[in-house]
Amino acid sequence: MPATIPVTEPQALDRTELHGSLNDPLLDAMNFLNEAAGRFPEALSFGAGRPTEGSFEPEQLAGHLRSFTDHLEQERGWSRDRIRTALYQYGRTNGIIHDLIARTLVNDEGIEVPPEAVVVTTGAQEAMLVTLRALFARPEDTLLVSSPCYVGITGAARLLDIAVQPVPEGALGPDPEAVLAAVRTVRAAGGRPRALYLVPDFANPSGASMTVEARRGLLELAEQEDLLILEDNPYGFFVRDGSARPTLKSLDRGRRVLYFGSFAKTALPGARVGYVVADQEVTGPQGDRTLLADELSKIKSMTTVNTSAISQAVIGGMLVESGFRLREANAEAIAFYRASMDALLAELERHFPAERRAELGLDWNRPEGGFFLVVTVPFTADGKALERSARDHGVLWTAMSDFCIDGGGRNQIRLSCSTLTPDQIVEGVARLAGFIEQEAG
Amino acid sequence: MPATIPVTEPQALDRTELHGSLNDPLLDAMNFLNEAAGRFPEALSFGAGRPTEGSFEPEQLAGHLRSFTDHLEQERGWSRDRIRTALYQYGRTNGIIHDLIARTLVNDEGIEVPPEAVVVTTGAQEAMLVTLRALFARPEDTLLVSSPCYVGITGAARLLDIAVQPVPEGALGPDPEAVLAAVRTVRAAGGRPRALYLVPDFANPSGASMTVEARRGLLELAEQEDLLILEDNPYGFFVRDGSARPTLKSLDRGRRVLYFGSFAKTALPGARVGYVVADQEVTGPQGDRTLLADELSKIKSMTTVNTSAISQAVIGGMLVESGFRLREANAEAIAFYRASMDALLAELERHFPAERRAELGLDWNRPEGGFFLVVTVPFTADGKALERSARDHGVLWTAMSDFCIDGGGRNQIRLSCSTLTPDQIVEGVARLAGFIEQEAG
Repeated sequence: MPATIPVTEPQALDRTELHGSLNDPLLDAMNFLNEAAGRFPEALSFGAGRPTEGSFEPEQLAGHLRSFTDHLEQERGWSRDRIRTALYQYGRTNGIIHDLIARTLVNDEGIEVPPEAVVVTTGAQEAMLVTLRALFARPEDTLLVSSPCYVGITGAARLLDIAVQPVPEGALGPDPEAVLAAVRTVRAAGGRPRALYLVPDFANPSGASMTVEARRGLLELAEQEDLLILEDNPYGFFVRDGSARPTLKSLDRGRRVLYFGSFAKTALPGARVGYVVADQEVTGPQGDRTLLADELSKIKSMTTVNTSAISQAVIGGMLVESGFRLREANAEAIAFYRASMDALLAELERHFPAERRAELGLDWNRPEGGFFLVVTVPFTADGKALERSARDHGVLWTAMSDFCIDGGGRNQIRLSCSTLTPDQIVEGVARLAGFIEQEAG
Repeated sequence: MPATIPVTEPQALDRTELHGSLNDPLLDAMNFLNEAAGRFPEALSFGAGRPTEGSFEPEQLAGHLRSFTDHLEQERGWSRDRIRTALYQYGRTNGIIHDLIARTLVNDEGIEVPPEAVVVTTGAQEAMLVTLRALFARPEDTLLVSSPCYVGITGAARLLDIAVQPVPEGALGPDPEAVLAAVRTVRAAGGRPRALYLVPDFANPSGASMTVEARRGLLELAEQEDLLILEDNPYGFFVRDGSARPTLKSLDRGRRVLYFGSFAKTALPGARVGYVVADQEVTGPQGDRTLLADELSKIKSMTTVNTSAISQAVIGGMLVESGFRLREANAEAIAFYRASMDALLAELERHFPAERRAELGLDWNRPEGGFFLVVTVPFTADGKALERSARDHGVLWTAMSDFCIDGGGRNQIRLSCSTLTPDQIVEGVARLAGFIEQEAG
């Protein structure tokens, strides 16, 4: 071959010469979440936040595609040629099911926005990346995150070298007073608090939920302090106790809220379809006005061009089949997660009644819904502890410190109940109890 | 509703407070490419670089999905449960068809790399974004791009605030001497030339192709100057004249080349599946070694988590059906584009024979393949000229200045022949000739 090229040994690249995010443990966390289960195949896992597969079969995909093309043909009167092109070609950057999503949002969440304000993305992760890129312009622009925090948002901020300020979360999620204190801390250090990221319902990882009063208080604070709110709502359908609360976006009269949506927990994670609602107006130097969604479109054209038309068609078909009422279509999943969380709480209580908890210095929260709860343990819950738990007791969980950018969570673990059957939860908590008793003993 | 929140008029955001890329005309270019055709629905378009739809029908998607699941079941012995989970769930960050892509690369391009070196992405665009993010760490790290240049790479660099140095392209693409001059310019200004982006075969937008000698020379230069090469090859199959040349990656013995691949032109653009081959070794501060592909995985987990499993299954099925020989499966498409480029050249020649060309100061190149050629015209080819062309003559094209970051291309237009039928090309060139004669007259 190319004898003229004098190559000896291929040179290796130096990781310290690569982007700083690659030398940050933060970015390993999500890879661990997605890939570590393979290391201990026999272990029962409270670690993964994967959704239940329900009654999914691959053969159903063709039916969903057909539901979407039938919708285009019958409801919109599209020709066969136009439908073929929509599925085959590059397409509209902000998506081809934005209108179906807008229809569904009215029914499911009482969120009324023009379809043009919906940006369809490759999962909610791309929505976060694109949104952060658009909003954060200067080194002093700072993202506030409720802490402990989903690693997807802090990871995206890390990729873009965006400064992050944690807002310590209380038992009921981020408190307006705590947010105000963080705003002042950032300003005192010369930063500009630009936006606050939060999950108001059944947060990942804490399981905490905000009261309606705190939601209203936060919107008021956002007005006063000129702050945007990035509301992420992957788990809102999955109410265990009580009833669903209004999203911040549905209460938002000042267009302070950008709303991230995901179909990973409510439809099909493998499709990788999410979205962001960005109905804010943007004014240009010449007084021209656009929607923020149109600005996000320019960014998205440089991240993924457009979201897979095939994936959009599958999700679009599922929305059509649900009558644009995805919450009702999730009745079985809602019941499944409710039963799982009930079982997890009951088994914890059975193994550790109040007296034993007090002896050990052990406790956990009782989330009103979602996939996650947090156990406070009387030992350091780090990677080595996880290794012992998996190897010696056959049970996996996630260290809360993985979600804390301020060094907290060192004696807390996150338990997810989203993938285990009731029998597995009974067995899993028995194994976990053995691990906790041994570590504490 | 929330009577307690004192909101008057929703405040608009100021575009100058958003990220700088949104105030840069560069990022409008690709949106124009994807969305402008709708403004002049009657115009014949030489603007879009869309591929031909061939004999695609939406009903074929179910067959491709089935080909993939059959492959998993019969060739790999996967259980129904495992296949269901692979299509339904979040999955491996770097993809589930990386091994099928590696098999195809051996057959089609003579590129032999371990499957683990292949990162499956949401189109080649995400591959560019993720790769740039990993490789560019410091403000002085500079990306060299052959200029005129595909807007996807300069746009991705703009999102990440990466410095870009143009390398003026000759008739045969980027010349090693010109690259060396650019390297020296960057170093003289205190920058670090980190990587060079190029399309060696039938470049977008110029249509230029590098000689084999120049490819070898560039690899040699990359060794000498410690430069990485980002090779993008969306059009390599589509040879019009002569025969296919070896990719830089197939000649690369020093692991200097990262190779971007796309299935948008060779399989199905709507699936949004691409990839990057990153078989470089990376050494960490403790001497630990990883593949660059594993580092890219950490970045990708924060851009899109993983590429749509549905989209991967469709492309995977097409690869299986082709016997992992996508070039052969593209025989019809190759013939189509060859005939289109032949027709475009013949019609230009018919309307503007040598004598008339000389009179007008008009000329064009004769690409050996691909979708694009460039016409040099005796007037300024800007947005206003395009408006006149579309409105008065019913023909669309793309201004070359959209692809030039150094202010060039002001009297050049790019013609794409990828979407028009032979009859449309005849009619389109007639309209274009009318436009050129009028502008020149």
